[in-house]
Amino acid sequence: MRLDLTPDQLAALTEAPAVEGDVAARSRPLAGIAALADAGPADLSFLGNPRYAAEVPASRAGAILVPADHPGSPAAGQVFLRVANPTHALALVCSTLEARLWPRPPAGIHPSAVVEPSARVDPSAHVGPGCTLLAGASVGPRAVLEAQCHLGAGASVGEDSWLKPRVTVADYCAVGARCRLQSGAVVGADGFGYEPVGGRIERLPQVGVVVLEDDVEIGANATLDRARFSRTVVGRGTKVDNLVQVAHNVRIGRHCLITAQVGIAGSTVLGDGCVLGGQSGVAGHLRLGDGVRLGAQAGLFEDVPAGGFMNGTPAMPFGLERRVAVLARRLPDLFKKVDSLAAALDSLRKDAP
Amino acid sequence: MRLDLTPDQLAALTEAPAVEGDVAARSRPLAGIAALADAGPADLSFLGNPRYAAEVPASRAGAILVPADHPGSPAAGQVFLRVANPTHALALVCSTLEARLWPRPPAGIHPSAVVEPSARVDPSAHVGPGCTLLAGASVGPRAVLEAQCHLGAGASVGEDSWLKPRVTVADYCAVGARCRLQSGAVVGADGFGYEPVGGRIERLPQVGVVVLEDDVEIGANATLDRARFSRTVVGRGTKVDNLVQVAHNVRIGRHCLITAQVGIAGSTVLGDGCVLGGQSGVAGHLRLGDGVRLGAQAGLFEDVPAGGFMNGTPAMPFGLERRVAVLARRLPDLFKKVDSLAAALDSLRKDAP
Amino acid sequence: MRLDLTPDQLAALTEAPAVEGDVAARSRPLAGIAALADAGPADLSFLGNPRYAAEVPASRAGAILVPADHPGSPAAGQVFLRVANPTHALALVCSTLEARLWPRPPAGIHPSAVVEPSARVDPSAHVGPGCTLLAGASVGPRAVLEAQCHLGAGASVGEDSWLKPRVTVADYCAVGARCRLQSGAVVGADGFGYEPVGGRIERLPQVGVVVLEDDVEIGANATLDRARFSRTVVGRGTKVDNLVQVAHNVRIGRHCLITAQVGIAGSTVLGDGCVLGGQSGVAGHLRLGDGVRLGAQAGLFEDVPAGGFMNGTPAMPFGLERRVAVLARRLPDLFKKVDSLAAALDSLRKDAP
Repeated sequence: MRLDLTPDQLAALTEAPAVEGDVAARSRPLAGIAALADAGPADLSFLGNPRYAAEVPASRAGAILVPADHPGSPAAGQVFLRVANPTHALALVCSTLEARLWPRPPAGIHPSAVVEPSARVDPSAHVGPGCTLLAGASVGPRAVLEAQCHLGAGASVGEDSWLKPRVTVADYCAVGARCRLQSGAVVGADGFGYEPVGGRIERLPQVGVVVLEDDVEIGANATLDRARFSRTVVGRGTKVDNLVQVAHNVRIGRHCLITAQVGIAGSTVLGDGCVLGGQSGVAGHLRLGDGVRLGAQAGLFEDVPAGGFMNGTPAMPFGLERRVAVLARRLPDLFKKVDSLAAALDSLRKDAP
Repeated sequence: MRLDLTPDQLAALTEAPAVEGDVAARSRPLAGIAALADAGPADLSFLGNPRYAAEVPASRAGAILVPADHPGSPAAGQVFLRVANPTHALALVCSTLEARLWPRPPAGIHPSAVVEPSARVDPSAHVGPGCTLLAGASVGPRAVLEAQCHLGAGASVGEDSWLKPRVTVADYCAVGARCRLQSGAVVGADGFGYEPVGGRIERLPQVGVVVLEDDVEIGANATLDRARFSRTVVGRGTKVDNLVQVAHNVRIGRHCLITAQVGIAGSTVLGDGCVLGGQSGVAGHLRLGDGVRLGAQAGLFEDVPAGGFMNGTPAMPFGLERRVAVLARRLPDLFKKVDSLAAALDSLRKDAP
Repeated sequence: MRLDLTPDQLAALTEAPAVEGDVAARSRPLAGIAALADAGPADLSFLGNPRYAAEVPASRAGAILVPADHPGSPAAGQVFLRVANPTHALALVCSTLEARLWPRPPAGIHPSAVVEPSARVDPSAHVGPGCTLLAGASVGPRAVLEAQCHLGAGASVGEDSWLKPRVTVADYCAVGARCRLQSGAVVGADGFGYEPVGGRIERLPQVGVVVLEDDVEIGANATLDRARFSRTVVGRGTKVDNLVQVAHNVRIGRHCLITAQVGIAGSTVLGDGCVLGGQSGVAGHLRLGDGVRLGAQAGLFEDVPAGGFMNGTPAMPFGLERRVAVLARRLPDLFKKVDSLAAALDSLRKDAP
């Protein structure tokens, strides 16, 4: 889809306090958005991350969102939109595009959807083709269920939530308001609970639920297990990326970022504002305070107080892990040095009277 | 759903040999199940893991399942149910709840399901809304396919197996009796088999199948690849957690526990009773004996005899890995110590005659 | 399905220059394909990996594909088919089987599929039961969409591509020609883009697309995120395994192999011919040259020039990582050695005049 907005229109949209560039360029409609190095004269670009600042002078972009204090000037025929926060400004532009690309689908239930008589669908909600809603399921005002979503018995989706195609919200689980769930997400699989009984493995029934509070987002093919009893909880405003595993009885606080492929084992409790790096893992029955951070691929096996930043496997405080990682690369030298020390000491002892 | 059972009823259900608490408390119906720290007077709680023993005296639970030899006594208005194994006792309670929450769906094929004429569905089985069963697929007695499951050509599901919504059992693959498959599981994707041919990558056709033996459970969005030829096998009673990857021609033994996000590469063979920790990986073409254990996030690149316990990446025997992990944290000290030894030796040499 | 081909027929099929074994054996139909150790007299087997050469003499296979220069001879009643490349020869046999097992489904749209009027489906394409195609979606000549696939608004699938059951190609995303997508793959989930805004986390709209070039294969339950703007790209001929995460704005070159459970963070660019080992991770905003290799479970946090081979977390050059891994296991000895050096030095100093 074409952007179809002029730099002047974009300046109004992003509330850019300063626009630099000639009038012709400012009133020429742009077609797309592209990274600095890829953009052409018909593209809007932006400097969101200072690491790319050196790419600005060479960029062929028709217009660039730059920080207010960016030192350069636009090239000929190019426009600079000076803004407080280019990333936020670009988000405003993208929001405009998003509203065009994804208009809210019409209210109503697609004739191919299967909705049990006892399910309650608000008249303003959209239930797409191929959806299946079991007994007692409920869909709130203005919620959107795209194609092939499944709500189990007694499952609920709150107002203004948006489920992309092929999402499962299993029996009795609850999705709050303004949540977004990506394709293939599974909310409410059975927890992995077993007991060895004489060489066999016996299943422990998992009769709890999953509760997603308001403003939660869940990534594609992520899996969240129902509690063994009571509730697995994802706190308000928390964002969970693709292919993340949240085990039974986990409680994630508010406004956390759980990056792709993270795994959180059973009964662990996270505070608010935690950030877990990609592919990291957290063992079961742990307590993480508010604002805890965990590096990518780290493996955490101990409680962490508020504000802690851990890294490595097994995870240790970030600063220590950095030193250990640097020294580990110097192990070949260390072994050699110790060998030569031993030799020197030997020869010294031989020489000793 | 409310628990709606009194402590006395729970005692009968769990065959608790001893019940402590006053008569009024013993005959008051409980509403839910909760962890010790979260439970209120209307909740049943339990002490399944000794690490939580200190939480018992402060718990406000209406009734607590405790080990027979637990030293404390119930608080006023509280009931202790003394049992041999609180975890097992709780499982009995949860089984009762589970039977209420998930009554077996009615026999028959939902009118929205698409079932090819040559597919065979036992009259006692349930095929839910939106399911698709291709030619020659078969569903055994009392099996349940919840909504939107797919059985490929010639695929089979054995008696009493239960497929949660949106499970794929691909062409020609076989699921045994009493298996449970969670939402989004894919049994029988193509194996990842390729050969580089002159700068391009040529696909090796994958014409084998996946066989799940009886009593196997597969987690949400787990993927099991069909064999290049012959069979990928998951042995009887083995439990596979969410987001696990089982590559082509892998053979997993009986009664294994494969935790979330584990990956097992092609042609590797596991014995019986193996336990793989979360996010661990096993390279291809390996042999693991019976009862092998692998720590969370470990990466195994060598065969392991029966009973071996490996940890770390690359994995080494558990005891060695623990020592190495502890010493790694002391590397900064070791480097300093070696530097000071070198300095001391230098000064000694200078002083030497 | 039975193989039902005689060794002589297999020799013709694989263009085997030399066939050894008696005439009766050469004209006896074989039933299946099995590994050397598992094969019986009715099976074809093969020696594709020299590590299994010792299993040939003991194999009971009715016929074995062996390299032209394999030193042994067939056992009584056994046939050797000597070929340049047994793996390639087996692939030819499996291709024959594959064509029998997976005949192209009939052209046309299954009556249970929901296809919006503005979607364009080539008359030679197959759209299976339960598929949902939104407005403006397009399906090219001879493409196959198996059951329950979903094409979003404006999504396209090129000629001769084959989507296994339950694949999502989200709105506006494009799949090239001759691609293969396995069950549960999600092409075009929202990128994980957020900005912390005063304690809350604000979503950055993701308005770009995913483009799969020709001959790309995507594994089961893999997830590829749409770009924040512009395009996330998987280059021609690249193969992506199960449960892989490709974040927004990633560009993967041509003819790469991305093994199971790999994660590639946002905006990273891979050259052609890269090979990423299972469960490895690549941080965001990196540049990997052509032919870069990354070991299994490695975690890469820096750019790598063409041809680089990295391993470990944080990843370092492969040779260095191997030395460090070996020395790490010797840390207990090193600590002891340093302690004894210190003691020896102490006693020397005491003895010093």
